[in-house]
Amino acid sequence: MRRKILVVGTGKSTAYLLDYLIQKAEVENLHITICDLNPEVLPDKIKLHKSCTILKLDILNDNDRSRAIEQSDIVISMLPARFHIKVALDCIQFTKHLVTASYISDDILALDQQAKEKGLVFMNEIGLDPGIDHMSAMQVIDNIRARGGKMILFESFTGGLVAPENDDNLWNYKFTWNPRNVVLAGQGGVAKFIQEGTYKYIPYHKLFRRTEFLDVKGYGKFEVYANRDSLKYREAYGLENVLTLYRGTMRRVGFSKAWNMFVQLGMTDDSYTIENSEGMSYREFVNLFLPYSPTNTVELKLRHYLKIDQDDIMWEKLMELHLFDSTRKIELKNATPAQILQRILEDSWTLANTDKDMIVMYHKFGYELNGKKEQIDSNTVVIGEDRTYTAMAKTVGLPVAMATLLILNKKITTPGVQLPIRREVYEPILKQLKSYGIHFKEYQVPYLGYNPDSVAS
Amino acid sequence: MRRKILVVGTGKSTAYLLDYLIQKAEVENLHITICDLNPEVLPDKIKLHKSCTILKLDILNDNDRSRAIEQSDIVISMLPARFHIKVALDCIQFTKHLVTASYISDDILALDQQAKEKGLVFMNEIGLDPGIDHMSAMQVIDNIRARGGKMILFESFTGGLVAPENDDNLWNYKFTWNPRNVVLAGQGGVAKFIQEGTYKYIPYHKLFRRTEFLDVKGYGKFEVYANRDSLKYREAYGLENVLTLYRGTMRRVGFSKAWNMFVQLGMTDDSYTIENSEGMSYREFVNLFLPYSPTNTVELKLRHYLKIDQDDIMWEKLMELHLFDSTRKIELKNATPAQILQRILEDSWTLANTDKDMIVMYHKFGYELNGKKEQIDSNTVVIGEDRTYTAMAKTVGLPVAMATLLILNKKITTPGVQLPIRREVYEPILKQLKSYGIHFKEYQVPYLGYNPDSVAS
Repeated sequence: MRRKILVVGTGKSTAYLLDYLIQKAEVENLHITICDLNPEVLPDKIKLHKSCTILKLDILNDNDRSRAIEQSDIVISMLPARFHIKVALDCIQFTKHLVTASYISDDILALDQQAKEKGLVFMNEIGLDPGIDHMSAMQVIDNIRARGGKMILFESFTGGLVAPENDDNLWNYKFTWNPRNVVLAGQGGVAKFIQEGTYKYIPYHKLFRRTEFLDVKGYGKFEVYANRDSLKYREAYGLENVLTLYRGTMRRVGFSKAWNMFVQLGMTDDSYTIENSEGMSYREFVNLFLPYSPTNTVELKLRHYLKIDQDDIMWEKLMELHLFDSTRKIELKNATPAQILQRILEDSWTLANTDKDMIVMYHKFGYELNGKKEQIDSNTVVIGEDRTYTAMAKTVGLPVAMATLLILNKKITTPGVQLPIRREVYEPILKQLKSYGIHFKEYQVPYLGYNPDSVAS
Repeated sequence: MRRKILVVGTGKSTAYLLDYLIQKAEVENLHITICDLNPEVLPDKIKLHKSCTILKLDILNDNDRSRAIEQSDIVISMLPARFHIKVALDCIQFTKHLVTASYISDDILALDQQAKEKGLVFMNEIGLDPGIDHMSAMQVIDNIRARGGKMILFESFTGGLVAPENDDNLWNYKFTWNPRNVVLAGQGGVAKFIQEGTYKYIPYHKLFRRTEFLDVKGYGKFEVYANRDSLKYREAYGLENVLTLYRGTMRRVGFSKAWNMFVQLGMTDDSYTIENSEGMSYREFVNLFLPYSPTNTVELKLRHYLKIDQDDIMWEKLMELHLFDSTRKIELKNATPAQILQRILEDSWTLANTDKDMIVMYHKFGYELNGKKEQIDSNTVVIGEDRTYTAMAKTVGLPVAMATLLILNKKITTPGVQLPIRREVYEPILKQLKSYGIHFKEYQVPYLGYNPDSVAS
């Protein structure tokens, strides 16, 4: 009998996901039903494929959604995270497995007991970050522990960037994922982590000045700023006693210091709207955040306010975005500063059709083994093919598709609401990902603890 | 027949308020009932006064509260603002006037129609700021308009400070009011105002670096940082068309730049708690906000982080607060950074028994009259007597007491939920305040518009 997979939602990240399932359809005896509010945008090779059924579906229509879920064997939800709960409740009702790439929300977590009772796998956080980060980290951590090692340091960094061959602006950055998330990154709470046993807190307005550098062999230097809550997976990973726990986001060197200009000006604020934003020029927008002067230019006021020297490349980064242009107008009504900034950046940072993106992930594992402190660094770099077949879509979509098939084939069987940190899950997926060019290189390096460059004198 | 005044709540600000009412009791035929959860702390001269009844009352006890209100002719609520609504609802039910020094909340405002129907005066915002600021500003504005002038600029600044004779720390500041409000000042929203027709927005982390200086004749130089919403009273004051509208808080010169160190570090954050705060030393607290280093001191890390030169007085300001002391411990459990900072500051900034406080208020009024632009500046300075008879208690309590008597005597009659911006209210009160040493000096000055120092070259 054919196994019926229901894919709900077809966003940016589903190109590789659908290709993988279709490619496996014959051998694995799969039928794939793909539903979306606008399924027309799917390519013909999917729309016309004999293993696929395309369904126009409003996820908020309870009858239509329930019927589709009832008729499937397993559900993949690629919807925005807030919609998962409706799908999940149907999965409980009709006894269907569920796979998502999103963070486990409280309402999804509340279904854990029911999922277990019905023997259902509710697999979440199985994209890139969260996803491949969990799996690649837990594989190394489990191996260290299997050898008798005791974890003392874990640092993990991920970045979604533009590939070196298309890295052609002064910010060394283009939007390869949701631009809104990039503009709001770091907001909504203090960044907290542990370094050598000491808790550390960074407020938002300092976040982009507390970066650290990181070399990735063959790809040069990157910088890292702290994620909001590095302590989030402390229990899940069993790292309650490590001295250093730090998770961060990677950018090319210089991005954060330049981004900090927007933070300092107040342009990333999403908490209030500017009433007269529609028709305002980019230049007028900048001037909202600078002191009034009857004589001085917006340019000089900004240079003075942010202490930008005449010969500082930071200035050229602003100019590249046409920030002082009085002819470019904002078309958004009653927009927040963050919404306006996003539009301004989209002018300059949108991927061209042939632009490739790049995913970089880097882990550091410090441990004690036989009385000695040691360290393993591991990393992967994935380059996309074009604007549709991005490294982001690949690294998010493939683990989701692979997990789905493994659940169908009863290779992943532990029931309940979960993230991919058990060997049963990560081992077969990491192995398959390798054949798709996503593999981690490991390096045994001397353990230096945190901040190895400091030497007392 | 004696007129019965009910005073609910006897906090810091009631010393002058009660004295005023008692002093008027015989002539005006008043009886004053004072209720509080802890009325024992009242001085004997009030407790034993023949015109006073003292009542121990839990304001949340509906029966007790209602009975007290029912038996009065007018109610003064000096409770924390969130409790006013219970008192106000009783006032509607039993047809009693109400006076408070608090901002009009939405739930109080919702009673406007009912108050009007019953002919009740619900007077609010009749303390210092809000209060005397409204009255003193509207008197000048109404006079300008009566002469045919058209308002084009209004700026207004208030500061609660320590009197010059007791101004003996490097911050030139002591707590003369609720310390928590001082630590959280400026948080919870962008600061917005209008300068020469242009909207301006300052994010919290820049607020204390966008100050302006201000001279007050006889008292030297002050600085001003912007209040959160300068546009709040635009309609109430009839200033919809002014080019400049700016309200701010006054400090002694240098305070804001030093305070900004706490903001930059993240020590004023009240949005998260530090789990292991209890027993933490002041030094460890500071180190939470600095990068880890195996070798460098907290002192040098902070100097470097905030770019404090060797000879900068900012450093001495921190030292004066014992911020790097490893023997002083925080006694608060799971406290927010803001709560901890408040405690540290209270060590150093609490008024001594004989310390006097100082209130400074400064307005600028720009207007056009007969085709010419002119300006009036007006200001007042009030010095307290000691830690009980503070300038703050005087300037908050006296207008409340005076308004109460004016309502009883039917000099203030316009019903409804209101603030003191009508001549009927401010004229008799400002006149009386003068005899208590609270009077505004007015200066006719050349109109310079905003930012008069800038000259193009």
